[in-house]
Amino acid sequence: MQRVKLHLAYDGTEYSGWQIQKNTDHTIQEHLERVISRYDPEFKRVYGACRTDAGVHALNQIAHFDMSVDIPEDNIATALNGDLPEDIVCWDAEKAAEDFHSRYDATGKIYRYRIDNGSFPHIYHHRYSAFFYEDLDLFSMQKAVRYLPGKKDFSSFRAKGCSSSTPIREIFSAEVYPQKDEEIWIEVSGSGFLYNMVRIIAGTLIEIGRGKISPAEMEKIIASKSREAAGFTAPAAGLTLVEIFY
Amino acid sequence: MQRVKLHLAYDGTEYSGWQIQKNTDHTIQEHLERVISRYDPEFKRVYGACRTDAGVHALNQIAHFDMSVDIPEDNIATALNGDLPEDIVCWDAEKAAEDFHSRYDATGKIYRYRIDNGSFPHIYHHRYSAFFYEDLDLFSMQKAVRYLPGKKDFSSFRAKGCSSSTPIREIFSAEVYPQKDEEIWIEVSGSGFLYNMVRIIAGTLIEIGRGKISPAEMEKIIASKSREAAGFTAPAAGLTLVEIFY
Repeated sequence: MQRVKLHLAYDGTEYSGWQIQKNTDHTIQEHLERVISRYDPEFKRVYGACRTDAGVHALNQIAHFDMSVDIPEDNIATALNGDLPEDIVCWDAEKAAEDFHSRYDATGKIYRYRIDNGSFPHIYHHRYSAFFYEDLDLFSMQKAVRYLPGKKDFSSFRAKGCSSSTPIREIFSAEVYPQKDEEIWIEVSGSGFLYNMVRIIAGTLIEIGRGKISPAEMEKIIASKSREAAGFTAPAAGLTLVEIFY
Repeated sequence: MQRVKLHLAYDGTEYSGWQIQKNTDHTIQEHLERVISRYDPEFKRVYGACRTDAGVHALNQIAHFDMSVDIPEDNIATALNGDLPEDIVCWDAEKAAEDFHSRYDATGKIYRYRIDNGSFPHIYHHRYSAFFYEDLDLFSMQKAVRYLPGKKDFSSFRAKGCSSSTPIREIFSAEVYPQKDEEIWIEVSGSGFLYNMVRIIAGTLIEIGRGKISPAEMEKIIASKSREAAGFTAPAAGLTLVEIFY
């Protein structure tokens, strides 16, 4: 058996998220497992670092599995891509230590939230961004985001149904910056994230950009440890898993 | 009756092109007509400036129709977008002179051909670009493209089935330039284009980028007036109608 580490990118628009579920056969994990089984009769399961939600995209999701057949490292990605749908790409595959675990070994992650703030949705970006028509105040959003970094109780940005045993997470960095085609990108890196955490942070920053919440209020929202204090959960389409650290 | 000029953007991936056809109800024109009819009981037809092919995108397709109901100019686009699918956007609508014709009045067009030349298809761009793995030589493509501008017989870049009465067209400008995320963009503006002309030009430039045809050969390809002399027809997904001049 050889443990293999996969680097995956996907357009999550058409999928019910990463994880295999009852009631749908249209998840990233399911598609990947179907393809790997064609090459490896003994294959059992592929494990992803992040269980991205329905509609969420990834530029570098990491996954691992145990391979019983002998395929040269350089040929694995090409073999998988030949059979994967166009919106799931394996862009690298490497042989890993037998105890490597994509999820438990991860020390950090970067998420990006893309806001299309033009006067109409840009057709090149509409699947990968959330469209908001009202002019968002970038400077207010940039002021507010500075309250996020640090090791804190992030209960305010934790959705119902979160199964984590603790609401404490460390945010390493959080930034809001303008991009071409009238987009605003929010990028947050941290040790890990609670359920819907980045989307609730994005929704809160959008409310701040709209002027409905003042930037300084962000500190109180965090301190309140209350989901009600924060903004709405921004749409899944705007979210991309960008990177995972080990 | 009030003639109305529409500015449309669309992601053509899921559509059988602009024009209404037998055997499919999934064209841009069909979707647009269905929505306009809901507002205007006397509505008959919307006319587009370009009959973009299946899979081809548009950032500014122009169309016109005659409206029998009185909707304020500023509300037309919003009304249509409320009912159009997400991948078709009307981003502006204006009242036009009663003899304005989107197609016959057009004096020029700009097309863009996007090539993803990374080592794997970029998930943010995969629907709007054609992926080519082999490193393309940008400088060769830039040298070759200089032979295009001018009023010429472009039979070499004319697909079978082209119904135009003449192969003479004027290309105003043609450029090849690098973009972020390892893309190469080809942009061509001209008085008008023959059937598949931009896609055959793109295919020829890709062959030149691969080193299979020398840049200077471009002059001979044009002079030959023979479709066989030119390269392949590059995939529709890479093509975007960018602008129409009046």
